[in-house]
Order: sequence, then structure tokens, then C-alpha cells
Amino acid sequence: MQSNEKSKFEKIVNLAKRRGFVFPSAEIYGGFSGFYDYGPVGIEIVNNIKREWWKSMVYENSNILGIGGAIITHPKVWEASGHASQFVDYLVKCKRCGQSFRADLLVEDILKKNVKPDKKELEEIIKENNLRCPKCKGELGEVKEFNLMFKIKVGPGEGQISYLRPETAQLIYINFKNILDTGRQKIPFGIAQIGKAFRNEISPRDFLFRMREFEQMEMQYFVKKEDADKFFEKWKNERFNWYLKLGIKRENLRFREHGKEELAHYAKKAVDIEYRFPFGWKEIEGIHNRGDFDLSRHEKFSGQELKYFDEETKERYVPWIIETSAGVDRVFLAFFTDAYSEEEVNNEKRVVLRLHPKIASYKVAVFPLVNKDGLPEKALEVYEILKKEFHCFYDSKGSIGRRYRRMDEIGTPFCVTIDHETLEDNTVTIRDRDTMKQIRVKIESLVENLRKLINFEVRI
Amino acid sequence: MQSNEKSKFEKIVNLAKRRGFVFPSAEIYGGFSGFYDYGPVGIEIVNNIKREWWKSMVYENSNILGIGGAIITHPKVWEASGHASQFVDYLVKCKRCGQSFRADLLVEDILKKNVKPDKKELEEIIKENNLRCPKCKGELGEVKEFNLMFKIKVGPGEGQISYLRPETAQLIYINFKNILDTGRQKIPFGIAQIGKAFRNEISPRDFLFRMREFEQMEMQYFVKKEDADKFFEKWKNERFNWYLKLGIKRENLRFREHGKEELAHYAKKAVDIEYRFPFGWKEIEGIHNRGDFDLSRHEKFSGQELKYFDEETKERYVPWIIETSAGVDRVFLAFFTDAYSEEEVNNEKRVVLRLHPKIASYKVAVFPLVNKDGLPEKALEVYEILKKEFHCFYDSKGSIGRRYRRMDEIGTPFCVTIDHETLEDNTVTIRDRDTMKQIRVKIESLVENLRKLINFEVRI
Repeated sequence: MQSNEKSKFEKIVNLAKRRGFVFPSAEIYGGFSGFYDYGPVGIEIVNNIKREWWKSMVYENSNILGIGGAIITHPKVWEASGHASQFVDYLVKCKRCGQSFRADLLVEDILKKNVKPDKKELEEIIKENNLRCPKCKGELGEVKEFNLMFKIKVGPGEGQISYLRPETAQLIYINFKNILDTGRQKIPFGIAQIGKAFRNEISPRDFLFRMREFEQMEMQYFVKKEDADKFFEKWKNERFNWYLKLGIKRENLRFREHGKEELAHYAKKAVDIEYRFPFGWKEIEGIHNRGDFDLSRHEKFSGQELKYFDEETKERYVPWIIETSAGVDRVFLAFFTDAYSEEEVNNEKRVVLRLHPKIASYKVAVFPLVNKDGLPEKALEVYEILKKEFHCFYDSKGSIGRRYRRMDEIGTPFCVTIDHETLEDNTVTIRDRDTMKQIRVKIESLVENLRKLINFEVRI
Repeated sequence: MQSNEKSKFEKIVNLAKRRGFVFPSAEIYGGFSGFYDYGPVGIEIVNNIKREWWKSMVYENSNILGIGGAIITHPKVWEASGHASQFVDYLVKCKRCGQSFRADLLVEDILKKNVKPDKKELEEIIKENNLRCPKCKGELGEVKEFNLMFKIKVGPGEGQISYLRPETAQLIYINFKNILDTGRQKIPFGIAQIGKAFRNEISPRDFLFRMREFEQMEMQYFVKKEDADKFFEKWKNERFNWYLKLGIKRENLRFREHGKEELAHYAKKAVDIEYRFPFGWKEIEGIHNRGDFDLSRHEKFSGQELKYFDEETKERYVPWIIETSAGVDRVFLAFFTDAYSEEEVNNEKRVVLRLHPKIASYKVAVFPLVNKDGLPEKALEVYEILKKEFHCFYDSKGSIGRRYRRMDEIGTPFCVTIDHETLEDNTVTIRDRDTMKQIRVKIESLVENLRKLINFEVRI
């Protein structure tokens, strides 16, 4: 990372903790590598991201249905999917200090070039370049395969070996038949799901970017083989535009198509939506043409027929799948990074989180101008009205300037202030986070005004 | 279960599967005991329950903050909480067929009386009454302790032993200090959380009631010791009323206070909110006075100070905790069961799911009366307007009567029908699920009308 980018990243991580967006998990026990807990301000943003995605997928498309599958799944599912045998990273351990590293990332970090994750190739590169432990310069051992699925035993006694799902997608495939039987859908149609997934990463890193527990938003679109390319393009563009509509800056977003040698075993075609993080361009979402790989495998392993019957053409076939797969935590980090800005106002630094109002945690804050003269009582009345409609914050402590700044920092788009004029004519001010401009409106039209402002139908 | 109750339960489970509420997880692989997947109609109800709870807790109380903690947590947390040593059930295995049973449930099922879960007592009862395997009548072995936490190994190589959280509450306690430092709250205040928890149940049973993977909605309210009883009463009543407000029938809901000998090791006082399921009165939520047990334990195990400093009285103390803890899946099952009804209409059986509109999956369905004369085109226009506001269903297939019945069965409260009159005067009918009455309204005021109907501000 360049030093200005590094400093920006540090500021973001620091703000996230200081203002209750994200805490290291079990911090009072020294934290737990690869796990984070969302704090009060952060969890709202997470929920807003999930809700906006769900609305854009399930509510706005009559041919996309939602499901919510289990995290612990039948072990056969992971045999069929290939994860039990092939979902591995390459581990290399220092012979001196005993520290473990993900071999491909170690090579990339030292040599500054992309490498193929392959046991033999990685061993050769390490040997040829005489790479050593980044911590203690000790000699590195041999490269080993390491399966990233978390194993658990289910049931009494010895139990049955199963896994925490490493991706949510498989839960959609194994419910394909149920949806077909109950959902009355014709191809093309989609199944959407949001939920946690788990990978026992060798080296969790970059804050929320590579965690061991994370959340996915995935949609699997079932199509005729001949239409696969068309729908791949459609969803690629739909998903890119979703980020733009919610305020991500165009210049921080790009597509990156996977080369043939990069493609996963199931993929015919893959493109990443990448965001420009302080630590580089990184994937926040993948759009994949998975062909008929998944349903064919589950058909084979389960012995159930997973074909679709087209009543018009009388064809019976295994549909192809176009997948859109986004990481909630990565998307959170992208929104958070993109929104962060510093500016100078009256010779003081103002930190503003310019989140889209739909993504912001609190939509509106309510302040009495001063903590006397009956203003707090009036402000609480207004708060009671607003809290039924919006996630709303009430604050009466400290100077009004400092209260505005606190809301700027956590991204609250609008602040409503009750002042002495309010007691005379029942009007309040609405202050805009980004422009710092204010307008005066009647309390009776406040909800309506705020609703339009949050939807960006009007601007201050 | 009595036979009419049993038959009702079977109908509910059957409807749940047939209409896409709930599927056995990994059904194409024969299912996986203790796990279920929510289908398209069910997942919306789950999300609505969670959203209503979150609104009533976090948005309507300025002193309750939300968090979202990790599922996999630092192992020290479970030592401090007592789960590592004490979170056990009692297992008894048949010597002949090898089947495992939860000893207390086996005793209760056979002898029809409540027993204390205690190894020695259970062994004595089994011996005295000469209880045998319910499956094969074989002799039962000795009673053994069985820890219900799912164990996993985190990190490369051998890894560190950790657990899937068996309850979400601990994630709140270990974040207490972070919230105190960043949330600017004074006691009393609360922390709320929704998320999955996992228990390796010996005998999962009763559909969604006792699963191995389930979801909790928990709120921990931090109070002064002297105020504990007062807030216990407050939250007991608040939570009871929440169910009533969302339409659960009063006669199917009751409190049950725990006797002294029943109390968990951490509890000063406990009351269950029970729902009358077809399989008996069962807990759907618990309200607990946990005293200062949890924070004191985490203070001791972490070496961090978890005391609250009262700036006014200059006191420093470990707060007491009043907990409200509900199971999402049990609440789902209660709403579902309570809403299910059958009636006779024109000599035909009508199945209606009388869910509160806020809980119902689809809020509104849009139908063209017939599939010709330009009605589908007009209906799709209306659908496009409504889907931006509500989760909305479009259907043009089959007779209008059958389409209404399908919506009745999945609990859609309102159906909007576009008929020939619509083409003349731009009005549509809104049909009420419960009364089957219809009103005619202008399309331009349709959204407004539906919003009032969904909020029960007006009724048809």
C-alpha cells in the first residue's frame, strides 16, 4: 500500500471501532483472528445492504424467489459439489518459528506477481527464488494441501461428520427441485439467498475483506444453455449498476474477466466486480456462468432427477446457471471506504461519511438546539413521531456543532433541530450532511419531507 | 397428542412443504435430522418476524442498540459462560439396537411426568421403573453427560478448538465494554441481537421446535440491582403484548414461571412465554433475571473491568441483566399454527392462513380477471407500481376463484383484481383474505389504500 492509502485505511479501521461500526470479535479476550462483530452503527448498514439487495432481486423480479437454507448441511452435498476433495488452499510452514502461511499469497507478497495456486508450481517458485519466512527468515517446509471447510460432528456419540457451508450457493441447488415443484416458475427464473458462510482461511487479512466467517448474497439464475451468454451479460450489468445507484463512485469500480487458466473447475466464464480498496483492486462480487455442472453433479450424487421440463417445446434438460455472488462484508467495506471523506470547514477538519441515505445507519437525528427552555421536551415529541418511520437518533448533549459533526462521522444524512422558533410556529430545520445547508419545514410535513429526501426525490 | 391436534399438526407440516414455507434440509439426499431450509414463502415470514422485533426493540427504544456478533467465538467465552463444562444433556443408549435417546425426554415420554435433568436421578428412575428402549424394547445402558456445543478447529494445522455459539447472548456480554465506550448510553440500557445458534441436540423433534440449527432474537437489558424486579415485569409484559399485537390469539398464550429447582445456574428468576402448540404448551420465549452472573464471570476470565460508572451517584458496579430471549423458528411455528384455519365456503373447504399483514409473506397479489382482452397488460402495469412498495405476487393462471384460494392458503391478506371495468374507469377491486369482501378503488389511490389496510388503520 502507498502511504496515503495506508493512512486512509488505518483511519477507516480506527473510525469503525471508535464509533461502533465494527469491533474485533471477543476483544476482551484479545480478539479472535478472522472474526469481527458488528456494532450498533455497523449492523444497521449491514442490514440495509441486505435489504436493498433483496428488494432489487426478489421484490422487483417476479421470477426470482428467495430461500433461507441451513448452514450445517448433509455431507453428501459437499462431495457432490467438489468441495470435500477440491476446496483447498496451499499451506507452507516455517521450519524455525512454526508460523503457517498461505503459499500463493506468500509468493505474491514477496515477488509481487500473480501465481497459480498449484502445489508443484508453488514449491518450485519457493525453491528457485529461495523464499524464506517473512517473520523470522527461517527455512520454509514443503507445500501442503489444506481443506478450507470447517468440519463438525453432528448427533450423539461419535456423530456424523459434516461441514459448515463454505458457500451458500449449494443450498440453492439442492432446493432446486423443491422450488420447481412448489414455485410455479418457468425457465428463466432465479433463486436468491442471503446467509453466512465459513472458510478456515490460513491467513485472514485486510480487516473485513478476508474473514473466516462472512456473509454472502447469492442469486442463481436457471436458464436454457443457448441463453446463458445473454443472461450473463444482463446480470453483469444489473449488478454493476446496483452499486452505482447506491452511490459507489464510478472510478472505484471495474470489471475484471477471469482468464481461462484462472477459472474454477465448475466455471465456463467468470467476471469479477472489483472495488478499489486502499489495499488494491479486489473482488466484491463475482458473476459466473456455471454451466450445468452443479445440477448434474447433484443429480448424479442424489439419484434424483433435476431436469426441467419445458411444456411448450416438450424438451427435458438440466438448466445452465448464471450466478451472482457478493460478499456482504466486502460490500460493507466498499461502501464504507467510498463514503469516507475529510474536508476543511472553518479551519477544522470535518470527517464525513457520505453514505447513500438508504445505506446509512440512522436516517435522521433529532436535536434540541439547547438543553433548556422547553426545547428538549418539544424535540422528544418530534423524535416520537419520527422513530415510527425511520431509524432515528436523539441527542441533547454538547454543542450543536459537535452534535452535527458526530452525525457526519457516522453518516447520518439529515439532522432535525428544534429551536426557539419551533415553539412559535411549529417549524424545524433539516440540515443536509453533505452540503451542510438547512431548510425550514413544518413539523406536520416533516415525515413526508424526510421520506422524499431519503429517496433522493428532492435535495437540499 | 390428541388425534384432532395430531391431524392439525400434520396438516400444517404438510402445507409448509407443499406451498414452499419450509423444506427438510437436503431433502434430495434424504434430509438431515435437525435441519430445515426455509422456502420462498417461509423466508419472507422469518424476515418479517425479525424486522418487527428489531423495530420494536431498537427503533422504538432510544436506549436499545443492536449488534451482530460472530457465530464462531473465542473458546474462552464458553469457559467463562459455563457452557464448556455445564451445557450438557443426558444421553442413554440402547444396548441392543444402539439408538441414542435424551434420557429426560425418554423418561417424560414414558412416565408422563416432568423430571429433573440429573444423571443420578435419571439412572434411578430408569432402573426403578425398568424402562426399556422405545424402539426395540432392549435394555438401556448407563446415563452419560453429552455436551451440546458443536466443536470445531480454527486455523491451519491442528488448529485451535472452538465452538459454534449455543446462544447469542454471550456475544452481547463480551461487547458490553465496547458499547459502553462508544454508545454514550446510561443505565438502564439494552443491547439487541438476532442471529443463528447451534445445539447438537440428541433428539431433534417437533418440526421447527427443536432443531440443531436455529435462530434467536435476544435483548439484554442492563440495570441497577435494585431495579431488576421492576424491569423484569416491564419486559415480561412488553414481550407478551408484542405477540398479541401481531395477532396471536390470547387463549393460546400464557406465562409459566420457573420453580426454584428448575432455574438455570445463572438465573435469579425466569418466566416462559408459552404457546399452545398441537403438541402441547411449549416455550417460545424466556424472560430471565440473570443477576450479575455473566458480566462478573467475563470480568474474572478476561481480566478486564466490566463495571459501570454512574456519574451522578459516583457508584461503580457490575449491572444486573434482564434478558428477553425468543426463538425465531418457534415464533414462526406459533404464528403459522395460530393462523391456520379451515372453513366451509360454498360446500368447499377453504384453508386460510390468517397471518397479520405485517407478518404475511406477500402483502398483495395482482390478478387479471381473465387472461385476455388486454387485462393481463393492465394488471402488469399495476403490478409494476405495487412491487416497488410491497412484496407482491402476480398470477394470471387458472380461474380467479382458484387464484384467491391459493393466496388464502399462503396468507396473502389482499388481492387486487383487474377486470373489464378497470379499462373503463381505472378502478380495481381489493379483496380481503379474511372476510372475502371486496371494495373498488381508483388505481391512483391503490398504494395509499393498501398501506392503510396493511397497518390495520382501516378494514374491509
